[in-house]
Amino acid sequence: MNTQETQLIPAKNEADVDQTLQPETQSLKSHSLAFVTDEATGIRVPVTEIALEPSPNGAPNGPFRTYRTAGPGSDPVVGLNPFRSEWIAARGDTEPYSGRERNLLDDGKSAVRRGAASAEWKGAQPVPRRAVGGRTVTQMHYARQGVITPEMQFIALRENCDVELVRSEVAAGRAIIPNNINHPESEPMIIGKAFLVKINANIGNSAVTSSIAEEVDKLQWATQWGADTVMDLSTGDDIHTTREWLIRNSPVPIGTVPIYQALEKVNGEANALTWEIYRDTVIEQCEQGVDYMTIHAGVLLRYVPLTANRVTGIVSRGGAIMAGWCLAHHQENFLYTHFDELCGIFAKYDVAFSLGDGLRPGATADANDAAQFAELDTLAELTQRAWEFDVQVMVEGPGHVPFHLVRENVERQQELCKGAPFYTLGPLVTDIAPGYDHITSAIGATEIARYGTAMLCYVTPKEHLGLPNKDDVKTGVITYKIAAHAADLAKGHPGAHERDDALSKARFEFRWRDQFALSLDPVTAEAFHDETLPAEPAKTAHFCSMCGPKFCSMKISQDIRDEYGSADSQAAIAEAYSGMREKSAEFLAAGGKVYLPELRIPAGN
Amino acid sequence: MNTQETQLIPAKNEADVDQTLQPETQSLKSHSLAFVTDEATGIRVPVTEIALEPSPNGAPNGPFRTYRTAGPGSDPVVGLNPFRSEWIAARGDTEPYSGRERNLLDDGKSAVRRGAASAEWKGAQPVPRRAVGGRTVTQMHYARQGVITPEMQFIALRENCDVELVRSEVAAGRAIIPNNINHPESEPMIIGKAFLVKINANIGNSAVTSSIAEEVDKLQWATQWGADTVMDLSTGDDIHTTREWLIRNSPVPIGTVPIYQALEKVNGEANALTWEIYRDTVIEQCEQGVDYMTIHAGVLLRYVPLTANRVTGIVSRGGAIMAGWCLAHHQENFLYTHFDELCGIFAKYDVAFSLGDGLRPGATADANDAAQFAELDTLAELTQRAWEFDVQVMVEGPGHVPFHLVRENVERQQELCKGAPFYTLGPLVTDIAPGYDHITSAIGATEIARYGTAMLCYVTPKEHLGLPNKDDVKTGVITYKIAAHAADLAKGHPGAHERDDALSKARFEFRWRDQFALSLDPVTAEAFHDETLPAEPAKTAHFCSMCGPKFCSMKISQDIRDEYGSADSQAAIAEAYSGMREKSAEFLAAGGKVYLPELRIPAGN
Repeated sequence: MNTQETQLIPAKNEADVDQTLQPETQSLKSHSLAFVTDEATGIRVPVTEIALEPSPNGAPNGPFRTYRTAGPGSDPVVGLNPFRSEWIAARGDTEPYSGRERNLLDDGKSAVRRGAASAEWKGAQPVPRRAVGGRTVTQMHYARQGVITPEMQFIALRENCDVELVRSEVAAGRAIIPNNINHPESEPMIIGKAFLVKINANIGNSAVTSSIAEEVDKLQWATQWGADTVMDLSTGDDIHTTREWLIRNSPVPIGTVPIYQALEKVNGEANALTWEIYRDTVIEQCEQGVDYMTIHAGVLLRYVPLTANRVTGIVSRGGAIMAGWCLAHHQENFLYTHFDELCGIFAKYDVAFSLGDGLRPGATADANDAAQFAELDTLAELTQRAWEFDVQVMVEGPGHVPFHLVRENVERQQELCKGAPFYTLGPLVTDIAPGYDHITSAIGATEIARYGTAMLCYVTPKEHLGLPNKDDVKTGVITYKIAAHAADLAKGHPGAHERDDALSKARFEFRWRDQFALSLDPVTAEAFHDETLPAEPAKTAHFCSMCGPKFCSMKISQDIRDEYGSADSQAAIAEAYSGMREKSAEFLAAGGKVYLPELRIPAGN
Repeated sequence: MNTQETQLIPAKNEADVDQTLQPETQSLKSHSLAFVTDEATGIRVPVTEIALEPSPNGAPNGPFRTYRTAGPGSDPVVGLNPFRSEWIAARGDTEPYSGRERNLLDDGKSAVRRGAASAEWKGAQPVPRRAVGGRTVTQMHYARQGVITPEMQFIALRENCDVELVRSEVAAGRAIIPNNINHPESEPMIIGKAFLVKINANIGNSAVTSSIAEEVDKLQWATQWGADTVMDLSTGDDIHTTREWLIRNSPVPIGTVPIYQALEKVNGEANALTWEIYRDTVIEQCEQGVDYMTIHAGVLLRYVPLTANRVTGIVSRGGAIMAGWCLAHHQENFLYTHFDELCGIFAKYDVAFSLGDGLRPGATADANDAAQFAELDTLAELTQRAWEFDVQVMVEGPGHVPFHLVRENVERQQELCKGAPFYTLGPLVTDIAPGYDHITSAIGATEIARYGTAMLCYVTPKEHLGLPNKDDVKTGVITYKIAAHAADLAKGHPGAHERDDALSKARFEFRWRDQFALSLDPVTAEAFHDETLPAEPAKTAHFCSMCGPKFCSMKISQDIRDEYGSADSQAAIAEAYSGMREKSAEFLAAGGKVYLPELRIPAGN
C-alpha cells in the first residue's frame, strides 16, 4: 500500500451524510462523512470532510479532510457493523466458543435483587472468540512476525503514513493498537509517540447517577467531538450490561478498570477481593470486547508506606484498593504475583495493558516523589514481562505535577519503559482551581505530550467535584483536542499545521462560516460570534465586532499584500532587510537621529 | 522596613467586611478584607483573608491570606480614596495646574452631536499634577537615586519581599511600578520577573456595545477575581468620560492605547492622524491618570513590507493603523520620530511605556518571523532611549506562537531589551479553537511566564469572535490566574506553593468548604459540587461523588498515614527503600520470581 494511491471519494449519497453530528448551526452543516480508500486493499477509512467557500478573489478552497473518531454512526439499539470480523476470522488463529457463563452479579447487587439488568442489550448477541490452542493473536505478535494486518493498513491510511512505520513501532512496543478480537466494530487506531497524539474520555455510571441510555449517548457525544478512546469507569448498577451497550456502539477502543467491577462483586469490601474473582472479571471483559484494561500491578506492598507522609496520600481508586488489600493481608499485590497469568489471558484476545499508576501524586506537593518513581520502576519491569508474551502495553502517568517537573515524568518513563506509550491524566499544574481543572491539566498535558506522551486522558471541569454531565464531557474533549493538537504542532508532526493554516486563511479573508467550520467546536464559535453580531449578513461582512466597519486591520494587511506581496517585491525587501541590522547599529552609534533607509520597492503597483 | 516586623491585623470592624465580593455561596462568605501593616511606616496593604475550619483531629488551620487586587472596594459614583496623594505631594517635585482644556471631541463624535458625554463623572473633580520645572518624577528615577518611596514599601509588603529588591529591580529597569501621579487611588503594584506573575484584563466599550456603568462594573468584577491591571480599550462614544469613571474607581493601574482615541478624533481616518493630535491625546490621558500606554513606535516603514506574505498580515489594530499611516504618507512612523518627546511627557507624570508589538503574529504560521523580530530589535532600541529619560518601560509580545517556539520569544526579548519586563498576549499555541482561546492561550502563557514574562494579558473565550461580556471577563481572569500561578510554581517563587498545599490538605481532610474557599473561583467550585451532591451534609461528609460512601481512597490513605506516618517509621522505610532498586535488579537478573522484601516497620501501631 502506498498513500500516494489513496483515492479520495467525496460523500455522494444520502447514507453518507453525517447523522451523528447535530446540525444546530450553519457551520456544522458543512461537515460530512467521507472516505479515504486504498484501492489495493479496498480498505475505507471514514474522515470528516469540511466544505469551504472560495476566497474573495474567486480561488477555490478545500474541501478540508480531517481525522474522524465518530465512525459511521450507529443506532444505539442495533449497534455498529462488526466490519473487522472477516479480518479476524481470515487469520485462522481464533475460534468462537461458548464463553464464560454469565452471572447476575456481573451487573451488580441491584441486578441480583431485580433478577436482571435494567435494560438488556437488544442487538445481535455476539459469540466470543479466543485464540486456538496456545496461539498469540496480538497485533504486536503479528508485527514482530513481519505481518502487515488490515488493522495496520487502516491505521496507515488514517494517519497518512507508511504502513511499515505502523508495523515497526508496534513490533518495538513503542506503539499499540488496542483492538480486542471481540470488539470487531472498532476502527483500528494507534497510540504511540510517532503518531498523532490521542485523547481518552472517561464515562460511566456510578452509585449516584445515570442510565445506560445516557452512557451510550455520552459515548457517541464524546467520539463526535474527537475522543480517540473511551474508558467505561462504571461502578454502580448494570455494569456488565452497560458495557455491552457501549462496546457494541463504540467505533473507538473501550478501556476499563476491572478492579472496579471486581470490587462490586465482593460488596465493596477491598479485603474480600481474590485473584480468582478478579481473573473471572477480566475474562468476562475480554469476552465482551474490552480493548485495554488498567491493571494496578505496580502498587507493591513495600511501596505503600512511602505514601504515608504525602499531602494527599493515595488518590487513585485502584491504587488505594490494592494498597488496602496488601495492608489487610500483609501480602504482595495479587496483580503483581499473577501478572504472567494475565499476560497469557490478554494474548488470547489481544487486550492491551494500561499499567495503572496507583501511586500517582494527587497534589503538586507529592509530584515526582519516591512512591511515584518506585512504582514506575515496577511498571517498567512489567512492561518487559508483557512484551515477552507479545502483549501490548501502555503505561499510565500522573496526575498533579508542577509545570517545571512535568518533562521529567515522560522522559523517565520513556527511558525506563523502553519507549512503551505513555498515557497520562493531565497532569494538573496547580491545585488551586477546582472547577477549571480541564484548564490546569491541559497546560500540563501539552507539555507532557510535547516530550512524547502518546495519549492524554481528559479531565473535565467537574474533576474533584462531581461526575461530568454531557456538557462537561464535551468541554473536556475539546480542551484535550487543543492540548493534543498543540503538542502535534510543537512536535512538527507532518501535516498538523494544515488545519491551523486553513483556519487562519479563512480568518484573514473574512470567510466567517469557514472559520467556524474549521474550528474544533463550530457550534460554540458560531454562537459566540452571533452574540455580538447576530445578523446573517455579518457572517459575510468584511469586518468584525472588534474593530467595527470603519477601520479594519485585515483590510490594511490586504493592501500591503497587494502592494508588496509579489515575488519581485519580496526579493527586493529581503535584500534591503539584510543590511538593516547593521544600519540600526550605525544609527545608535551615531546618537540616535532618525533616518529613513532608501528602500526601493519595484514599481508597477 | 523589614517584613519580619509586619503586623498582621485581622479584619475587626464592619467597615472592613468585604463589600465587593458577592457572597452568593457559603464558601465566599469566608473571604474577608484584612490588612498587613508595616509598623515603621504605618503603610497598610489590603489582603484577602480566608477563614478555614479545623482539621478532623482538631488542629486549627489558617486563616489563609492572599494577594488582593480588588482594593478596599468603592461606590462607583464616589470613587476610591486617593490615598497616595500625600505621598506624591510630600515629595515636593510636582504641582497642581489647570491642565489641558477639555474638548467635546475627547468623548467622540456622538458626544459632539449631543453636546456632552452620556453620563458625566459625578465624583470629586481632581486637579491634575505634573512635575515642576524639568524634574523627573518616575519611580525609576527615585530608584536610581537610591530613594525608597512609600510605593516601594507598599509593594514589598504586598509581595512579601525585601524593599531593596523592589528598588533595585526598578532601578535596573527589570521591573516597573505603573502609577501615574494623577491616579492616586491606585494601590502600588510591580511588574517584573523577580515578582509574582501579573495578569491584565482588557475592557472597554466599542461602536457596537455597552454603557459607562457596565464598564465600571466590569472593572470591579475583573479586579475582584484577580486582575492586576486593567486596560481600557474603548473606541466608541464617551471615551474620555468612561476613562474618568474607570480611573477614579480603579485600585489597579489603568492602561490604554492612545491611538484608539486619537483615531476617533480624526473620524476614523488613519491617514489624517498627526503627531499633534496624538500628543494632545497623550497629555489628556496623562492628566486623567492613565498609568501605562501602549505605543506602537516599533512599526517602522521599512518593516511593513515584511508582513506582505504572512498568512494573516498585521493583526494588531494599533500596528495596522501606523502601518497604514506610514504607507499613505511614505514617511516614518511619527511615534518613532517623536519618541524622545513622548519620553519627556511621560517623565512628568510617571506614565510607563508599554511598547506595542504592532507586527505580532496573528497566526501560528507567522510566529517568530522577520517582521516580528525586526520590530523587537526596534523595541529594544526604544527601551534604551526611554531609560535614558528614567522612564519606565515594558515590552509587549505575541500573540499566536506554536508551543515549541514560545520560549524563544521571551529569551530573545529579555536579552535584547536587557531584562525590561515582557508583557504578552497569551500566546495562543494553536489557531483551531475559536471559542476556547482562553485555553489555547493559557497554555502558551504558562510556558512564556515560566521563562520570565512578567505580565500576561488575558484572552477571553470570545477572542476572534466578539466582545467579552461579564462572564467572559471572569473566565478570562480565572484562566489567567491559573497560568500566572502555574508559572510562579514552576519558577519556585517563594511561598507560591502555600495555597496549593493548603487546598490539597483541605481536600485530603474532606474539608469541602475550605476546598471551595481556597480555590480561585469558590462560587463555581461549590456550584459544581452541589450539582451531584446538593445536600448540605455532603459538604462535611467524608466521601465524595466520585467513589461514593462505601469505598474511599482518602480513607485508606489516612489509615496508611496512621500506621506508617511517624518519624520512626519513615526512617525505617527510607533505609529499606534505599536498597530496593538493587534488589529489583537482582530480582530481574534471577528470572523474575516474586519476592517480598523483609521490610521491618517499627512496632507500636
